[in-house]
Amino acid sequence: MREIKVLAFDTFGTVVDWHGSIVAEMARIAPHVDADKFVRAWRAGYFRTTAECVANGQWRVVDDLHREILGEIAPSFQLDLDEAAMDDLNLVWHRLDPWPDSIPGLVRLREKFTVTPLSNGGIALLTNMAKRAGIPWDLILSAEVFHAYKPDPRAYLGAAEVMRVRPDQVMMVAAHHRDLDAAKAAGLHTAYIERPLENGLAHPKDVSASPEHPLHFTDIESLADHLGC
Amino acid sequence: MREIKVLAFDTFGTVVDWHGSIVAEMARIAPHVDADKFVRAWRAGYFRTTAECVANGQWRVVDDLHREILGEIAPSFQLDLDEAAMDDLNLVWHRLDPWPDSIPGLVRLREKFTVTPLSNGGIALLTNMAKRAGIPWDLILSAEVFHAYKPDPRAYLGAAEVMRVRPDQVMMVAAHHRDLDAAKAAGLHTAYIERPLENGLAHPKDVSASPEHPLHFTDIESLADHLGC
Repeated sequence: MREIKVLAFDTFGTVVDWHGSIVAEMARIAPHVDADKFVRAWRAGYFRTTAECVANGQWRVVDDLHREILGEIAPSFQLDLDEAAMDDLNLVWHRLDPWPDSIPGLVRLREKFTVTPLSNGGIALLTNMAKRAGIPWDLILSAEVFHAYKPDPRAYLGAAEVMRVRPDQVMMVAAHHRDLDAAKAAGLHTAYIERPLENGLAHPKDVSASPEHPLHFTDIESLADHLGC
Repeated sequence: MREIKVLAFDTFGTVVDWHGSIVAEMARIAPHVDADKFVRAWRAGYFRTTAECVANGQWRVVDDLHREILGEIAPSFQLDLDEAAMDDLNLVWHRLDPWPDSIPGLVRLREKFTVTPLSNGGIALLTNMAKRAGIPWDLILSAEVFHAYKPDPRAYLGAAEVMRVRPDQVMMVAAHHRDLDAAKAAGLHTAYIERPLENGLAHPKDVSASPEHPLHFTDIESLADHLGC
């Protein structure tokens, strides 16, 4: 544990609040839409299409998947925007807001560790998100660098390889046990962050501790406390 | 020109002073070595081996090339270090110092543009260099992301692709006309930065303007002036 060099963060849900950010955008541009239901349908489509990519050994950037899903779900939500407005709405995933503890926590952690996203979001998405919100990453690692979506082991092992460290010198930080299970299987350390409202106020998430991932924190500042930052 | 979104910087020589930084390290660890000659031999080996990689369609990380060359040239310089010290010396390329205008220039430019290295140096090398020196990149792009060394067009086109912009929305910034020639051929904008002492005080470089690259600046702050930052 003393030898950890790199902290790799899941992004959607762990660092940024996708549900709250997109609900706020929908309230602005399409107040008639059931935004909670809409954003959960969009997110479910992302899980389905990235899993299809993994199953087919295929690689496509998340922006393109998001755009395709958006086109598919729009009619059932009576979302009637022109193509330019749909393209712009698709980029809401580049404009997600961090949870309140994310930036203060990362500022502390980067004093001692190299901090990077390790997200299925693309390089442009993660870069634009960080630039807009001021997220102080040292670099941007994405599934796009490895052409392999998490939980494919190549994503976790790739992060260690490009940083020229051993897998056990990397800690994966995520609000999802599935992500941490795969990281652990690849030989990384893991830390869980509770994000009980990730799916919105109406859908509280079970954030019980898992014996598989004993490092379990309420937020990123608490992780910084634990790591002595 | 008004649509440029991304500034991609060559790194060795353009942003950091490889010659001066390594000469200083050699003075500290091996004062008997002709450091000027040594560092130029190391750099020449880098040009030879990356060109071989391009010619053979092969990919190897620069850290490994640097280490191999170091082993080859050490005897002729009476450089007699143990393996651990050789490995550490090899990482001097992660510890290069920026030119005095680099950080102030980049701080200004990143207010308006996405700023990234686009270097043959690896991801770990560029990340460690930026973290040590405080270089404020928005992301780290390396030939390693594309498994193609500059001047392979895939490196330049890859930078545009992962940032989801057109090639003509990227400006390549470099102190080497050969790099800019290839960037221009790939459809990028180009800007030349004079670094007359890149090869050391004893080997002033011809920094004459090329009609192919009319944007020609003495340093990165002058580029920021020109771009209205």
